[in-house]
Amino acid sequence: MAQRVAVIDIGSNSVRMVVYEKTSRFAFRILHEEKSRVRISENAYQNDGILQEKAMQRTLYALENFLTIISSFKARKTLCVATSALRDAPNKKEFLHKARHNLGLKIKIIDGQRESYLGAIACANLLPQQDRALSIDIGGGSTEFSIISKNDIANNISLNLGTVRLKELFFDNNEISGAKELIDLQLKQLDNIDISTIIGIGGTFRAISLALMNNNKYPMKKLHAYESYYSEFSKFLTKILKSDENGLKKLGIKSARFDTIKPGALILDRVLNKFKVDNLITSGVGLREGVYLADLLRNSKDKFPINYNTSVRQILDSHVDDSAYSNQLSKLSKQLFDITHKKLGIDIKYRYELAIAAKLCISGSSMHFYSQNRHSYFLIQDALEFGFTHKQITLISTLAKYAKKRFPSSLHVEKYKELLPSKDELNGLSYLLSLSIALLSHKPRNIDFMFELSDKNLTVTSKNSLFLAKESVKKLNSLKNFNIIFSS
Amino acid sequence: MAQRVAVIDIGSNSVRMVVYEKTSRFAFRILHEEKSRVRISENAYQNDGILQEKAMQRTLYALENFLTIISSFKARKTLCVATSALRDAPNKKEFLHKARHNLGLKIKIIDGQRESYLGAIACANLLPQQDRALSIDIGGGSTEFSIISKNDIANNISLNLGTVRLKELFFDNNEISGAKELIDLQLKQLDNIDISTIIGIGGTFRAISLALMNNNKYPMKKLHAYESYYSEFSKFLTKILKSDENGLKKLGIKSARFDTIKPGALILDRVLNKFKVDNLITSGVGLREGVYLADLLRNSKDKFPINYNTSVRQILDSHVDDSAYSNQLSKLSKQLFDITHKKLGIDIKYRYELAIAAKLCISGSSMHFYSQNRHSYFLIQDALEFGFTHKQITLISTLAKYAKKRFPSSLHVEKYKELLPSKDELNGLSYLLSLSIALLSHKPRNIDFMFELSDKNLTVTSKNSLFLAKESVKKLNSLKNFNIIFSS
Repeated sequence: MAQRVAVIDIGSNSVRMVVYEKTSRFAFRILHEEKSRVRISENAYQNDGILQEKAMQRTLYALENFLTIISSFKARKTLCVATSALRDAPNKKEFLHKARHNLGLKIKIIDGQRESYLGAIACANLLPQQDRALSIDIGGGSTEFSIISKNDIANNISLNLGTVRLKELFFDNNEISGAKELIDLQLKQLDNIDISTIIGIGGTFRAISLALMNNNKYPMKKLHAYESYYSEFSKFLTKILKSDENGLKKLGIKSARFDTIKPGALILDRVLNKFKVDNLITSGVGLREGVYLADLLRNSKDKFPINYNTSVRQILDSHVDDSAYSNQLSKLSKQLFDITHKKLGIDIKYRYELAIAAKLCISGSSMHFYSQNRHSYFLIQDALEFGFTHKQITLISTLAKYAKKRFPSSLHVEKYKELLPSKDELNGLSYLLSLSIALLSHKPRNIDFMFELSDKNLTVTSKNSLFLAKESVKKLNSLKNFNIIFSS
Repeated sequence: MAQRVAVIDIGSNSVRMVVYEKTSRFAFRILHEEKSRVRISENAYQNDGILQEKAMQRTLYALENFLTIISSFKARKTLCVATSALRDAPNKKEFLHKARHNLGLKIKIIDGQRESYLGAIACANLLPQQDRALSIDIGGGSTEFSIISKNDIANNISLNLGTVRLKELFFDNNEISGAKELIDLQLKQLDNIDISTIIGIGGTFRAISLALMNNNKYPMKKLHAYESYYSEFSKFLTKILKSDENGLKKLGIKSARFDTIKPGALILDRVLNKFKVDNLITSGVGLREGVYLADLLRNSKDKFPINYNTSVRQILDSHVDDSAYSNQLSKLSKQLFDITHKKLGIDIKYRYELAIAAKLCISGSSMHFYSQNRHSYFLIQDALEFGFTHKQITLISTLAKYAKKRFPSSLHVEKYKELLPSKDELNGLSYLLSLSIALLSHKPRNIDFMFELSDKNLTVTSKNSLFLAKESVKKLNSLKNFNIIFSS
């Protein structure tokens, strides 16, 4: 049985649980996720942080159900962390005791710095690499900040600003200016920080990003690694802060979030206003992934190996049986790229995406051989989620979709144009992948041909017949000013 | 390593190879398929059936490449059969010797009756059950007929009618009436046969079905088990027979088939004209699947066990890890169906589809947990291919797509309306599946609640909190005149 680990996160607003399965040394997938909006801190902030009886009972019921789910997956261990709401609660011992005594669940209350660090290692390891970014995780009771530079994390700060907290202390009494003053005062702790990007973690940032994506008719349905810009984001926050419930609905905010979105938007607005950096990145991962990664990567300083991508590995682990062929295809596509990319006018930077597309393009055949292209396409779109930009994901999934087929359709190219390379580059890359597959039609143990580029001709030489390869190459779309010639 | 078996089929027109993998006792999936249009019988029919040197060499090259592919998959055995072209060839020994000596490949030439039987067991086992059907497999050199009644096969007949044969003997000299006479004469062997359905096997029937589907704007992209009717099919054949190449292109026939489609269409036209049965079913399977099944089912009289579906099993084997939950969900959905279907006005016949949808709706989570619905949908559409009608596949995949979500969208329902139940029935079924999932939110080891229907209320009773279940049920779409009440 593969190693399975469950993570439970008790936040002020909701409790969440994830069951992860390790697919190899540094790769994993989610088996199950569950969330319950129990709002453990309900009415606590007006009562000196004291957790209320009903809220505690709801939370215990949800946790009890979580444990049944975890046991149904036979998880090897359960890591349960609690944050701000429990940190602040004078009666936390009572709750911890009940969880331990009645449910057998050991809850670890983590301090604000640790909470910030854990969210940040999720971002540092699972988002495309950033030079100097500030992560911000707005929770129900607190907000965490860290500086992420490449894979390094510093300045972990936790402020007692949170959506539920501000709602109960200020917004419920319509004292918005009081909230603003408190936020600005607390944010002074972030003075003298120099950053170029803001990474947004947590439900508030995700909800606003989602609304913004819909508003922009963004072609992908993926929040993680979504990139937006100061001006549009900031304008959107202003709209949210000015809207009544009807207005929020029109902006695309779900009704369950109506009562906490404004406090969250206000915190964000003040942060953006303070830093005015142009680039914003949405994170789909946070504390829970951080808790899991801190466990998974405990012997490697909370980092993946260099040049390692965990999503590529996971897809290979779960869906590619024939790894020799996958590697051979990737190797050949890189060789073909290296000798042709100048002639074909393809930017050198796309070499990596071509190689990954070659590695993963057969992954869909684990679903259905004949429709493997569409399954590879959807699988890559969804599961190639960590460490890649949306442009990279779109290019790689597009190449897989059209592998060994005609060039990407104009409908497809039109839909994703803001994320794809130029048409000529895309067709060139698509051709190189299809050509690699065609040349390996007979699946030789070792590549049994050589090739050479001269002017318009790529000449392929072999002592074998390459019968199927020739037949397959004949069926390819042709590229202008580029011919394949077999000599033997 | 799972058991892998390769099948090679040497036909008059093309050679094909498939590598199958057994996923459990009676379930399998395709790992690889390859085809080469080597046309081994080229110019043979004008030369007393003697295989020509060039054609044999092409075939040997292709077979050599097939064997490299097979060895890359580490297949345990290779079953290679040859049909009409080799049966008829005076110089077949020369070819068999070369294959054996140079490639190490043992080719088994099967007689016409065996060929017919093998195609028929593929249809009998992998198509929805038919009462009294005639299967017809039009090949390059011969055409096979069998009678399929439920799972039984009789009257295996092989006639020396084939597309390449008729092309070379008649169509190349524009002697269409001669071809027609020969066909009608041979078809006398099928006098006094009483059938209600015709099952079409092979490339000609598939090509015509595909063109007809496109012509009809059929919503599914699946040939296997496609149902059509005498009148439309017959009209389409007439159009093909009257068309020049440009006309064939407009009808949606691929250029590679231009030279053999008319002889094939003429055979079909004469057969339809003879039997005039109303129902036609397209088979995506044939000789190769028959060869594989005869091996897989060798100890069970070439039949699957009763009430067994091989595609359901394969999807479960490959994509559902948590079979206890899958079974529990299916059981609960059937229980809920049994006590509510009259009240909800759902035809009893849909009970089976609901149960299968419940079994398979989590299959997509092997691709990506969060987007499991869309992956289950596509997986079921493609991989639930054997033994189901298109209506069943559409209903089951639709239920999986909308499991635990809102009701099927009007866009979706509109697209598939010719294949789906009435809107009320569909919403009722969708609700029952979503309700089953919601009630099992906490994934209990055994179902820990009871339920009872009275008038408009389904009352759920449990000694446990069912906290997550209650929360999930609250989020469901509501059905008119139907409430869920929790009592505890």
